[in-house]
Amino acid sequence: MSDPLPTPADLPAAPRVSSPSSPVGLHRVLEPTGDAITLPQAARRLDARAELWPDEVRIAVETLNLDAASYRQLAGKHTVDGALDGAALRAEVLDIVATRGKMQNPVTGSGGMLIGTVDAVGPQSPLGLRAGDRVATLVSLSLTPLCLTDGLAGWDGRSEQVPAAGHAILFGRSIAARLPDDLDPHLALMVMDVCGAPALVERVVGEYAARDVAPTVAVLGAAGKSGSLSLAAARRAGAGRLIGVVPVERERLLLEPTGLADEVVLADARSPLGLSAAFEAAGGPADITVVCVDVPGCEQPAILSTAQGGTIIFFSMATNFAAAALGAEGLAADVRMLVGNGYVPGHADLALSLLREVPAVRTLFESRLAAESGSPTPPPPQHTEQSSTAAGVTGGGSQLLGVLPREAGEGSAR
Amino acid sequence: MSDPLPTPADLPAAPRVSSPSSPVGLHRVLEPTGDAITLPQAARRLDARAELWPDEVRIAVETLNLDAASYRQLAGKHTVDGALDGAALRAEVLDIVATRGKMQNPVTGSGGMLIGTVDAVGPQSPLGLRAGDRVATLVSLSLTPLCLTDGLAGWDGRSEQVPAAGHAILFGRSIAARLPDDLDPHLALMVMDVCGAPALVERVVGEYAARDVAPTVAVLGAAGKSGSLSLAAARRAGAGRLIGVVPVERERLLLEPTGLADEVVLADARSPLGLSAAFEAAGGPADITVVCVDVPGCEQPAILSTAQGGTIIFFSMATNFAAAALGAEGLAADVRMLVGNGYVPGHADLALSLLREVPAVRTLFESRLAAESGSPTPPPPQHTEQSSTAAGVTGGGSQLLGVLPREAGEGSAR
Repeated sequence: MSDPLPTPADLPAAPRVSSPSSPVGLHRVLEPTGDAITLPQAARRLDARAELWPDEVRIAVETLNLDAASYRQLAGKHTVDGALDGAALRAEVLDIVATRGKMQNPVTGSGGMLIGTVDAVGPQSPLGLRAGDRVATLVSLSLTPLCLTDGLAGWDGRSEQVPAAGHAILFGRSIAARLPDDLDPHLALMVMDVCGAPALVERVVGEYAARDVAPTVAVLGAAGKSGSLSLAAARRAGAGRLIGVVPVERERLLLEPTGLADEVVLADARSPLGLSAAFEAAGGPADITVVCVDVPGCEQPAILSTAQGGTIIFFSMATNFAAAALGAEGLAADVRMLVGNGYVPGHADLALSLLREVPAVRTLFESRLAAESGSPTPPPPQHTEQSSTAAGVTGGGSQLLGVLPREAGEGSAR
Repeated sequence: MSDPLPTPADLPAAPRVSSPSSPVGLHRVLEPTGDAITLPQAARRLDARAELWPDEVRIAVETLNLDAASYRQLAGKHTVDGALDGAALRAEVLDIVATRGKMQNPVTGSGGMLIGTVDAVGPQSPLGLRAGDRVATLVSLSLTPLCLTDGLAGWDGRSEQVPAAGHAILFGRSIAARLPDDLDPHLALMVMDVCGAPALVERVVGEYAARDVAPTVAVLGAAGKSGSLSLAAARRAGAGRLIGVVPVERERLLLEPTGLADEVVLADARSPLGLSAAFEAAGGPADITVVCVDVPGCEQPAILSTAQGGTIIFFSMATNFAAAALGAEGLAADVRMLVGNGYVPGHADLALSLLREVPAVRTLFESRLAAESGSPTPPPPQHTEQSSTAAGVTGGGSQLLGVLPREAGEGSAR
């Protein structure tokens, strides 16, 4: 109970709690309880009280960044005749947070991340944060205790980025990254949001490089955030030929001049034949295929387009486990398939270093940020492809020639 | 059109088709067609005609082995007041095959496998089969063109193993294994049905062994078919400590005397706390965790119980991709997560060699086979845990102390 550090946790407003805590946050789970207790992500309701357990950190919230799938669902629900009802959307988000003690979309199950300032650090927190640090949380909002105090008055509902006041709690085993001084925080957030992808790509390509192999790497959704960072990471880690796959001409024109890929091809990632033909024409099949396209149905095409003995990394949250497992077996495909874990140690720093060192990546991200900021009406630019996502889900006759999948990227791993 | 080999494909009853074929079977897809064409597994309807394309093989069917999830769904649907309506079940299977040209359960999406005798080999087939070979198909029934001719008259609906007459088609890129002469075909089939699991476990453990590391391996569902084979494969590949996790005392008593695991522990694989505590008590956390328990909700427990830098292999078809990806991130867990690909070259031979070389494996499989054959009423023994599976799905207050998950194994990868 003795604490030599005069952290804000000592302030009367935030007395520490003395009952035992769990590094993964079980002590904050209010529902379910007892023998049925779950980890915070699966919990229906969390305890979002401001008081800290000794290993926790409290953040004063500035901005919530709703994950793309969640925002799309909410915005769609509250759009009538093409007009977004911002007040209704705001009310629903407030209700979710008040009811669940966290911002977890009940339909998509996803959350997002947040930016804020550390305002209290428990004496036993292992995270290395200090009061006053401006941070982004890299664990999902779907497991982060959250309390909002401003009624989201500063948010018109027209953006995933939600100005907000209130507090959030980090557990002993959470992840937060200090926002760098040299970058626009929104730019940094955008990069950190997808930083697991380039980190895992670097690791996998590095395994090949350690054996003096320069693998051919193909990235599906290559013009997107996770896709472009994955290309840059693969290049730096020693990849050989880099193939970038994009669904529409507009993205081809965006990606091609950057040189991030050696070859940019236009293909529907849901079409087994179209994709494998595109890979072949571009010098494939790939030794490593990175799936960053968040539409369903990319499993078998990716498998069919990857060399025997190769690796597929699925970052898309639309990936269906059974489709991947059965798809590989059905094609007698000896491929290693990795679930894209959003956490790799050092992932945020790695992604930020790519942004700093690779001008093409920075240009892509800055233009995307400008487009998002400047969007006058919902849905913002990255959601204009929303209808194509729906087409991807429903399938149908125009599946391959009609609207094409959007590239993934925004918070796809949260 | 000239064919020097007098294969049965030359018989008038099976004229070869001269239009181009695809090694993955696209030429047999009847619905959807055109630009929307899918691979056979995703297709609504296949062309199951007896005539062969030059790279195909035709099998005279003896036995269908419905996958466990499919049989469970169908048997459950046609069970009223605890009594199975075998005729209704038979009629539904016949209707599915007649309608779709394959045995793919429309609810579960899964199929199974079959035993039969090769009765025609196209001159360009790369599979190395000859007419008269008795084989098991190792690609799913969900993508195998199938035509039944006996109305399933020999099946009372009370077993996953369905005596059947008719024909099935293998494509250029299919997998079939000759049934060994020294083993009961049902025993061989039972082993081949789950042979992807031990093969992948052997490969992953072998990666550690090549670095002179003897990893601690934990298997969830260790008394089951895929689980026990995985333990044996891990041992042979150079694993260190082997932990077998089972859900019920009966299975502990079954597994413990075999010595397949160094430590057998009783734990609910859906309980993050229970499982990680059990691992720790048994000398964990594990470097490699193998998930063979086919109930939902094992992702986070497996992640929490695996060492940082470790590997999780998900063989359970109940695995949820997003739960795994988000679960690892939410726990800041640096774990490699592999989708359990049911195909690894040589997998059938490897699994059969384990059966032959490891008496404990053979004993487990033979006793299981005897139990299944001797089951007088549905559901057969491996399905008496059906209710616990349902409990696993629905969750609820008794989740952890009440009924426990069944172990996976039967056709879980098909």
